[in-house]
Amino acid sequence: MVQLAAELTGKAGSDKKWVYLFQEGNASMRDLLGGKGAGCAEMTNAGLPVPPGFTITTEACNAFYAGGKSLPAGLWDQVLASMRSVEEQTGKRFGDPNNPLLVSVRSGAKFSMPGMMDTVLNLGLNDDVAAGLAKLTGNERFAFDAYRRFIQLFGKIVLGVKGEVFEHELDQVKERLGAKTDADLSVDALKDLVAHFKSIVKQQTGEDFPTDPLQQLERAVMAVFLSWNGKRAIDYRNFNRISHDLGTAVNVQTMVFGNMGSDSGTGVAFTRNPSTGEKRLFGEYLLNAQGEDVVAGIRTPAPIATLERDMPEVYKQFEEIAERLERHYKDVQDLEFTIERGKLYMLQTRSGKRTGPAAVKIAVDLVREGLIDKRTALTEKYVPAADITQLLLPRFVVEDKEKATSESRLLATGLNASPGAAAGKAIFTADKAAELGERGEAVVLVRQETSPDDVHGMIAARGVLTARGGATSHAAVVARSMGKPCVAGAGDLRIDDRTGEMRAGDRVIREGEFISIDGATGEVFAGEIKTREPNFAEETDLQTLLGWADDVRRLQVWANGDYPRDAQKAREFGAQGIGLCRTEHMFFEEERLPIVQQMILAEDEAQRQDALDKLLPIQKEDFRGILQAMAGLPVVIRLIDPPLHEFLPSFEEQLTKVVELRTRGDNPAALAKEEHLLHVIENMREQNPMLGLRGIRLGLMFPGIVEMQCRAIIGAACELKKDGIDARPEIMVPLVSHVNELERTRLQLERVAEDEQKRQGVSVHFKIGTMIELPRAALTAAAIAKHAEFFSFGTNDLTQTTYGFSRDDAEGKFLLRYVQEKILPENPFQVLDRDGVGQLVRIAVEQGRGTRPDIELGICGEHGGDPSSIEFCHEAGLDYVSCSPFRVPVARLAAAQAALSGGERDR
Amino acid sequence: MVQLAAELTGKAGSDKKWVYLFQEGNASMRDLLGGKGAGCAEMTNAGLPVPPGFTITTEACNAFYAGGKSLPAGLWDQVLASMRSVEEQTGKRFGDPNNPLLVSVRSGAKFSMPGMMDTVLNLGLNDDVAAGLAKLTGNERFAFDAYRRFIQLFGKIVLGVKGEVFEHELDQVKERLGAKTDADLSVDALKDLVAHFKSIVKQQTGEDFPTDPLQQLERAVMAVFLSWNGKRAIDYRNFNRISHDLGTAVNVQTMVFGNMGSDSGTGVAFTRNPSTGEKRLFGEYLLNAQGEDVVAGIRTPAPIATLERDMPEVYKQFEEIAERLERHYKDVQDLEFTIERGKLYMLQTRSGKRTGPAAVKIAVDLVREGLIDKRTALTEKYVPAADITQLLLPRFVVEDKEKATSESRLLATGLNASPGAAAGKAIFTADKAAELGERGEAVVLVRQETSPDDVHGMIAARGVLTARGGATSHAAVVARSMGKPCVAGAGDLRIDDRTGEMRAGDRVIREGEFISIDGATGEVFAGEIKTREPNFAEETDLQTLLGWADDVRRLQVWANGDYPRDAQKAREFGAQGIGLCRTEHMFFEEERLPIVQQMILAEDEAQRQDALDKLLPIQKEDFRGILQAMAGLPVVIRLIDPPLHEFLPSFEEQLTKVVELRTRGDNPAALAKEEHLLHVIENMREQNPMLGLRGIRLGLMFPGIVEMQCRAIIGAACELKKDGIDARPEIMVPLVSHVNELERTRLQLERVAEDEQKRQGVSVHFKIGTMIELPRAALTAAAIAKHAEFFSFGTNDLTQTTYGFSRDDAEGKFLLRYVQEKILPENPFQVLDRDGVGQLVRIAVEQGRGTRPDIELGICGEHGGDPSSIEFCHEAGLDYVSCSPFRVPVARLAAAQAALSGGERDR
Repeated sequence: MVQLAAELTGKAGSDKKWVYLFQEGNASMRDLLGGKGAGCAEMTNAGLPVPPGFTITTEACNAFYAGGKSLPAGLWDQVLASMRSVEEQTGKRFGDPNNPLLVSVRSGAKFSMPGMMDTVLNLGLNDDVAAGLAKLTGNERFAFDAYRRFIQLFGKIVLGVKGEVFEHELDQVKERLGAKTDADLSVDALKDLVAHFKSIVKQQTGEDFPTDPLQQLERAVMAVFLSWNGKRAIDYRNFNRISHDLGTAVNVQTMVFGNMGSDSGTGVAFTRNPSTGEKRLFGEYLLNAQGEDVVAGIRTPAPIATLERDMPEVYKQFEEIAERLERHYKDVQDLEFTIERGKLYMLQTRSGKRTGPAAVKIAVDLVREGLIDKRTALTEKYVPAADITQLLLPRFVVEDKEKATSESRLLATGLNASPGAAAGKAIFTADKAAELGERGEAVVLVRQETSPDDVHGMIAARGVLTARGGATSHAAVVARSMGKPCVAGAGDLRIDDRTGEMRAGDRVIREGEFISIDGATGEVFAGEIKTREPNFAEETDLQTLLGWADDVRRLQVWANGDYPRDAQKAREFGAQGIGLCRTEHMFFEEERLPIVQQMILAEDEAQRQDALDKLLPIQKEDFRGILQAMAGLPVVIRLIDPPLHEFLPSFEEQLTKVVELRTRGDNPAALAKEEHLLHVIENMREQNPMLGLRGIRLGLMFPGIVEMQCRAIIGAACELKKDGIDARPEIMVPLVSHVNELERTRLQLERVAEDEQKRQGVSVHFKIGTMIELPRAALTAAAIAKHAEFFSFGTNDLTQTTYGFSRDDAEGKFLLRYVQEKILPENPFQVLDRDGVGQLVRIAVEQGRGTRPDIELGICGEHGGDPSSIEFCHEAGLDYVSCSPFRVPVARLAAAQAALSGGERDR
Repeated sequence: MVQLAAELTGKAGSDKKWVYLFQEGNASMRDLLGGKGAGCAEMTNAGLPVPPGFTITTEACNAFYAGGKSLPAGLWDQVLASMRSVEEQTGKRFGDPNNPLLVSVRSGAKFSMPGMMDTVLNLGLNDDVAAGLAKLTGNERFAFDAYRRFIQLFGKIVLGVKGEVFEHELDQVKERLGAKTDADLSVDALKDLVAHFKSIVKQQTGEDFPTDPLQQLERAVMAVFLSWNGKRAIDYRNFNRISHDLGTAVNVQTMVFGNMGSDSGTGVAFTRNPSTGEKRLFGEYLLNAQGEDVVAGIRTPAPIATLERDMPEVYKQFEEIAERLERHYKDVQDLEFTIERGKLYMLQTRSGKRTGPAAVKIAVDLVREGLIDKRTALTEKYVPAADITQLLLPRFVVEDKEKATSESRLLATGLNASPGAAAGKAIFTADKAAELGERGEAVVLVRQETSPDDVHGMIAARGVLTARGGATSHAAVVARSMGKPCVAGAGDLRIDDRTGEMRAGDRVIREGEFISIDGATGEVFAGEIKTREPNFAEETDLQTLLGWADDVRRLQVWANGDYPRDAQKAREFGAQGIGLCRTEHMFFEEERLPIVQQMILAEDEAQRQDALDKLLPIQKEDFRGILQAMAGLPVVIRLIDPPLHEFLPSFEEQLTKVVELRTRGDNPAALAKEEHLLHVIENMREQNPMLGLRGIRLGLMFPGIVEMQCRAIIGAACELKKDGIDARPEIMVPLVSHVNELERTRLQLERVAEDEQKRQGVSVHFKIGTMIELPRAALTAAAIAKHAEFFSFGTNDLTQTTYGFSRDDAEGKFLLRYVQEKILPENPFQVLDRDGVGQLVRIAVEQGRGTRPDIELGICGEHGGDPSSIEFCHEAGLDYVSCSPFRVPVARLAAAQAALSGGERDR
């Protein structure tokens, strides 16, 4: 490191090329020039009208830090030379009052980090240059407005003066002069402001505002480098998992002005609609304005289409450029442009962010148009797999949302924390939301931030909106787990649950008024926007894309489901099997629970057997249903797993009942009865039920239960076979820790299965296998595989035991903070932990295949629906992932992406 | 296997040697001839008077099973040839009424399985032979008594007639004739019995009692083979971890009779006292009796010493033989002998079982006597490491126990389930035992068998006695875990808790009368036998042996201890450090708990800090004490580990309080207060506290606690240093699952430690390390070792998470049955599971040393005191084991045994 630093800062560095003119770079130099720099270079070399400029490399940024925050040797000379080149190209001169060159200084990292780093505009101005600019343009107003903006930005970003100080001064001047907007200020007022701003700088920093343009430039470049390690930027990179050692480039570019009259303007546009994917220019612009004005929201921009009417030539040129850039980059482009006195300048081009539905349509359209091939369309760059869920959730009706936008009903944009769209009454407390929600009213729960106390309100609401908190805040995490739309951290909203009001700027929403939120975009609207339910079958582009994915992927995609309706849904979404059918859910149904309780509370074997005999036909019907729905495909049925006390009243309930009766003392008979039940429940209680008498331990202690279930499964398969239906049950033994547990159970299951087949006079195909959900099972998988035809990785429990985290407790008590404070890179219950849990999976895969080469290997934990975890499953050589039916399309695409990204089996 | 079976049963087998005359074998042929056969062979070849005979090999037994339970080819011919040789040696002939040869047929496996397999005596008798025998001996009574005994044994063992049927008949005859004992029966009565017994056989089996001696022999041999796989034998082997495929040999040996008059007798003797190790013949004999009579307990045998008076020549010969055998085998011998008409015959010699104290004395004496060297004395054969605990537990005063024995107060002998001796009132219910025990009375809890409902009684009792259950029964397991004496499965006792009586044969003990139990031998006595407390310092033989062990072992032995008194005890026992000092126990002390609760319930940081400030000096004093007691040796101090709710009232208690107040409704103020506390406790409750907010998770959520503890530890060390005392604290971070947890905590600890050293103006040496107690920590140990100077394997928690067993729940709910039913080979909380947990330990050792070659590695789980687990720790290359102070001597010896058994580091 020491040597490297020396190399970067010492003599060796002086020969290094730190600066590239735009004409010297190209799109492939993104690492060195950043996204913006590479884009400008590519456009420049393509002959597009880009204001001349140059890029200081990301290496220079790293050298700056390595050298103790000083510019590396040789850099400044290269900057000066590049400035001379820009002067030649523009015919203007930096610091020359007669024909001044002004520049912008902007950061530009490899990956876009919008708003996270700093930009200085109009650099090169001082009193003389401003006067010269006024003269040259004949527009004193323009010149001094540019000057005061420069001082304001430079003061804030380079000199560290708080932005509010300037804002406050500006507001005071406006108030004094009765000006409503900045545009109402007179030339004199602007000149006054310039003087005031300079004295503010002197007062706050103790130094005069720098008048030397080259000094301005040097300090601005260093400020941009420093902004790379600003808190906001670091947080953003942490959250988006961008490496901290990439560094940022700095772009120095000739200023062009969209605010030089009605033949000038500025705008942004996408080459296709980023919400729908429709192939048509989509964007907006403002005449006689600079970029800031668009952001300030004082004037409403016009749709890009109206530019055709305003300046037909320019529009045509822009259209051609947009088309060229899209063809060039083979993707939707997000463009920034400025028109200065009728001349179009392109300031930026980059891949456009888009919604899930747009991503799918665009990817498919680009293939149809011949721009990309199918394999390219399947990559994460075009369609992030997780975004597909947006097509399976309620969405706003496009026309209705456009109407809301055009009516300026957009209140704020927060974080797109959990996809889906919802409209409902804005309700500010969880209790009230629960009350209304249970009455069937459409409610959006609106909170400053949520806590575990709000969960009942979240359950009852259609969606959740918070003013504070990020993508891992309580609201975001819980909403995602519930599959509900959530917009989090909409910081522009002021929510006051005492007055029952929410403010967005001047606008007030009273509690009970309708709002609409789009969890895929983070938008919050006033009033109701209609939503439409998704229809998978009608999503033809998605079907097309998933068809291509199916051709590419190696991993099969199965689904978890307990009921025939789940199975039907899963098949519709393309599932190739059921990877986890939990049998105990059926026990909770109302008419069955008393029989289950009879079984548990039985005082002798006869009573217990009697209950089991009653359950047998019921379970058989359950299994018939799901096996029939999945005819021809495998159905993995897990034997009873939860501890039996889950089927009894809770200890607390029963204790409360007993203490009440005891305190009253008026009903000794009832007391005795309830005390008996309390005693039974108490005896069954466990300190740590997760690690207690459940899974196959239960089966070994009460063999009758497992035998009943096995008879029901095989019995159902036999009956279906006689009806000509191809049932393919796979019996899964849960929570095996020692091979003997499985060996013994297997013998028992085989005996029952044989007996049932004899009884029915047919034979059926079935498999017996086990969950791998305890570390010991993974570590001893070679022995376990002797008795298992398949392994299904139960990564939920495996994560719990490998980490020693009880999910129920951890997520509420510390896991969220662990993720927020970066103690853990992510929630291991959402993204499979490759270092720990993944290591165990790999051990078990290797051992399992070693013993039984054709062993069937899959995953049935929640990770089965998470793209990063699916990539791992592909790499680890599993045969399938199983996830909730709803995640099947995501998994199909993620499996294809894993295959395309080159992960190879047993790599 | 098929081929092997063919080989064993087919032609190939006929050439094989299946039978060895005693003179053809020797002591090294134990595998082939079994212990008894090898012993008889060795004695025969040493010229000792052994009744002639031969041994059918263990291979024959295996061939018998491989061949579908038929004798292998060639075997019978070899048996016939050997019988002819025996006839020649004895001058008697098998089946010849004129001079009949009678034989015994006994099993004899490689390892002694006392009473587990079957023996037939007096084989070769039929009506003619019996008559001839009567004539030859001139003793009709003897001849017909031998005959009826033969029918009885053969009927029971070979023909499968229930023993009770014969016993019943015998009792009826005795009653009819007014005979008190068998000896009172007349010759006619015995002849009648023979006839009756034969008709019983006919009636029960449908066949006549076999009269052909050769047929008797063949069937007896097969019966012995079959007994190898009898249920009792299988259970015994399972429990003692003896392989099931060893097979048993069969010994056919000339009968000699100790019941042929007053010049005959039979007895057993040890070459040294098996209770104390004293070097003097120890045993007993009966004149004019057979072995069975000793067992039946009708006549009281005489001490072996009186044989000198009865038959001085024979005694002298026996003494010489005993001495010779001991020198020959270099170990205490357990001898069986018979004197037939003045001639001494040796029937068996084998290593004598002995108590822990005897084992230690004998081993040390044998070294002193030059029979063995020190390394041999240290082996498990001479001193099983676990038996050392017997020297550290109360023992019976030897004279007092001898007195009890001589007064025939021995009631029964059960299983030696948990060592130590206790005397107390026999109490038959747990409630009553608890009541008396809490009053300070000496109580022995006596139960048919115990269940979790009896635990409070066990806690209050000095010892536990059960009539049913084996070494893994509830009583045995729980008593061992409590360190209390327990005799289990004393099947001869009839316990009736309704009548308050316990019967042992004719003797009746009423509830409340004193009994005494010896958990090291399984003996139960009527009345009180005085016990004496152990004094480690006075156990000079043990000190000597452990000194030798210290010279041999590589593993260090540390102790777990929380208080200075534990540390002193540990040092006294030879501990070389404290491997686990738990800091939270101190929090539970009466005057501290309110401060701890203040800390937990604090509503803001100031309140919490105030409580921590109060705890700091208290904790510092705690640490001063233990660091001072261990001056010069390392003390590993674990930061707070248990969930905070453990320091609050239990949820149930608090709920009960609230429901009572609520139901009464007369004290709303109190109700509100208690409801608030209930709410707090409820919020802190966890589904699975084992996997919840505890360990370093707590430290990361409430950094103030950890900082206070660190300041107290380093502060104490600094103060001691100023007093000239060498304190060596090692700070241990518990429950790390991800390296970041440790990295962050380490930075925090280092900061506090530095600050405290500056404050005190001295610097001290300390280490920071971590528990490895979660699978993930073991799997990612390479990364964790970057921030840990030591690893301490917390194998209790590691076993819980690797197996997914909550110990609290598992041991009560299913683990016991798992072990009983052999689903698990042993309780993994007692014996470290090498395949699972051990694999993780090895992974962590390898990764840890890879990152940091000098990392200090130890184990602090309960396994640290278990010999088999210590052997594993040695093999895995750990630096030390840490166990309870009481187990330190065991661990010292076990560590030496591990080193001697050739386990090598990283093997």
